[in-house]
Amino acid sequence: MRQRHLFTRTQKQAPRDEVTKNAELLIRAGFIYKEMAGVYAYLPLGLRVIEKIKQIIRDEMNALGGQEITMTSMQRKDLWQKTDRWDDDVVDIWFKSTLKNGTDVGLAWSHEEPITDMMKSFIHSYKDVPVFVYQFQTKLRNELRAKSGILRGREFIMKDMYSYTANEQEHESFYNKTKEAYMNVFNRVGLGGNTFITFASGGAFTEFSHEFQTITDAGEDTIYINREKNIAINEEVLSDTMLADLGVSRDELEKVKTAEVGNIFNFGTAKCQQLGLTITDERGEMIPVHLGSYGIGITRLMGTIVELFHDADGIMWPESVAPFQLHLISLLQDSTDHAEELYKRLVDAGVDVLYDDRDIRPGEKFKDADLIGIPHRVVVSEKTVETEKLEYSHRTATREKSMISFEQLTQRIQ
Amino acid sequence: MRQRHLFTRTQKQAPRDEVTKNAELLIRAGFIYKEMAGVYAYLPLGLRVIEKIKQIIRDEMNALGGQEITMTSMQRKDLWQKTDRWDDDVVDIWFKSTLKNGTDVGLAWSHEEPITDMMKSFIHSYKDVPVFVYQFQTKLRNELRAKSGILRGREFIMKDMYSYTANEQEHESFYNKTKEAYMNVFNRVGLGGNTFITFASGGAFTEFSHEFQTITDAGEDTIYINREKNIAINEEVLSDTMLADLGVSRDELEKVKTAEVGNIFNFGTAKCQQLGLTITDERGEMIPVHLGSYGIGITRLMGTIVELFHDADGIMWPESVAPFQLHLISLLQDSTDHAEELYKRLVDAGVDVLYDDRDIRPGEKFKDADLIGIPHRVVVSEKTVETEKLEYSHRTATREKSMISFEQLTQRIQ
Repeated sequence: MRQRHLFTRTQKQAPRDEVTKNAELLIRAGFIYKEMAGVYAYLPLGLRVIEKIKQIIRDEMNALGGQEITMTSMQRKDLWQKTDRWDDDVVDIWFKSTLKNGTDVGLAWSHEEPITDMMKSFIHSYKDVPVFVYQFQTKLRNELRAKSGILRGREFIMKDMYSYTANEQEHESFYNKTKEAYMNVFNRVGLGGNTFITFASGGAFTEFSHEFQTITDAGEDTIYINREKNIAINEEVLSDTMLADLGVSRDELEKVKTAEVGNIFNFGTAKCQQLGLTITDERGEMIPVHLGSYGIGITRLMGTIVELFHDADGIMWPESVAPFQLHLISLLQDSTDHAEELYKRLVDAGVDVLYDDRDIRPGEKFKDADLIGIPHRVVVSEKTVETEKLEYSHRTATREKSMISFEQLTQRIQ
Repeated sequence: MRQRHLFTRTQKQAPRDEVTKNAELLIRAGFIYKEMAGVYAYLPLGLRVIEKIKQIIRDEMNALGGQEITMTSMQRKDLWQKTDRWDDDVVDIWFKSTLKNGTDVGLAWSHEEPITDMMKSFIHSYKDVPVFVYQFQTKLRNELRAKSGILRGREFIMKDMYSYTANEQEHESFYNKTKEAYMNVFNRVGLGGNTFITFASGGAFTEFSHEFQTITDAGEDTIYINREKNIAINEEVLSDTMLADLGVSRDELEKVKTAEVGNIFNFGTAKCQQLGLTITDERGEMIPVHLGSYGIGITRLMGTIVELFHDADGIMWPESVAPFQLHLISLLQDSTDHAEELYKRLVDAGVDVLYDDRDIRPGEKFKDADLIGIPHRVVVSEKTVETEKLEYSHRTATREKSMISFEQLTQRIQ
């Protein structure tokens, strides 16, 4: 893409009320736009990152046998009343509205109830399960405060998956596979080394649920970890009994601030029973269905990546989720043929390029490039035209420059 | 994909209150699920059609120079008050809700106001325009009645594009290019021959707007057309003056029922002036910005395609938007190796296959295949294994069978 054509511009300042690095840098670099507190639009650069994250997650969910769907934002009161999750006293983050005929409707903050109810049309026998469905959906949550940038939004994109299984073993098996798939996701987006599967408060059925917590000071959670033993415990469930069970002592634990980038949750058979989803077993007898729920906040993940990968000058995207692979910066003034030709050659070679063809000072171009944070960079100038080489650098702390050939460049990118 | 694995099942009946063919067939075949009147979820087959339609539109919008973004569902009251579109008396399809602190928020039914306001951060000079942005977004509209299946939803997916230009000529030029791009879209999804650019009631700035109307009895509009002269007029603006201007007489017109699959709209400079978006011209003087707005209802388009392409047995998808290219139906009972091998070979050849590997009667398989409506079909049976040929047919009225080779099959599909 030609940068001349990109409608967004970098900004010197983010809105004053943005206290987090993720919102500050993403707004200044033109990835997101703040509509109101906790409500952000995604601009061309931001949407590219979102789509790359979604594709990585889609890969991993499909490999688990997940089937992609899109449920609705509008929610039926009667369904959520059946499970006692409609009242604002019980769930305090609902946005609600009203149809013209006076009927109350909710706006979805999660989807266990409607998906479980829908499954009554499709799941009747033990032969019809297991079923794993997932979606990428814009969720609305009426948060009292929203001040962590895109780490906690009132409107945000979430991947949520739901598993329907015939018994505890089948549930456990999928639950454990999902744990692995989730760690694959966090590894692939660059958060692996800083992300821990963490014991957290459970729900209706199990003592604990599992959260995926990434170490960052911008996070809202506090967990205790032991890196060697790969143990992580949310402070809300830390107890002497738990420590004894895990074979670790308090003074072996490190206290860290984290952001919850994913969670997996076992609803047991309670939810399906409340909503009337049952199946027949081999003998024709009615048995309950087990429900698991598995979430990853897509926009929160994007924000967490920025929190972990930035320096004083801007963002440093991991290659897997960068908006473009290569930033091509032309410093040529009079004859731009060389840069144009190189851009065309790169596009033809299948490289995803942002080409800075703007008529502005070199200093501004470099400043913008540092802020936007595309990993590979090539600068074209009178000097490089003479030497018939490309001036290459990478958006890292060292940023060493080297003169390389076109073939060397495409090799480094692939 | 293995049909055994697909969690949806075909249904004999659609909900009783569904009076349209599009909802009846899409629900029965498992493409969509009705959450409430005018609110549908998209299941794996349906989501595949949606994604194919979106990709065709994305192609055409990118070719126009459009940049993809995603705006928010939550809307600020103050912005919509500036243009007098907040009050329910003026816009009677708002869904509204309230933040915890009591602030009113709207749920987006269109996006002229927030995008125009956002552009104040990016557009300052004549050098910064033209800008064309578009999005695929779930819109909410509080319709009094919703009874046309997915042709008119309370929650639906829309592609909306917005153009910001410096003057009337620049606006006109883009507006006319968009007309062509829209006709490309309708041609590519199979609606071309039945879709007319139609004069309709205009807005603040122009006498007429343009609608894209597709002939179908399920539609809610009535237009008058002359096929030879390629003239189409919405009944709401039909007048003697207009007929005289167009050089056509009343008795040369045919009255048809139609569904509005797209519309394009010139807001002139009014909206940008109300919201304070101005630019400087070559002499440094402030000039107003022209806004155009261009919509295509994605889910409505999907419904209209079903209305036009079905028979008594089910849907007949155009190849460009079919959920899969090929339906592979195995009638083999004991040894399924041949079918399994063929499936693998087709997937390796890049063909998008739905493989019916279920243990059910052949009659049921054919009935389901007719209902689902995938264009190309191959049946594998003891007979075809013997002859080393494939039994091929196409989901059309004739459905003639022929025995062909693997190479002939892949040629027909590409």
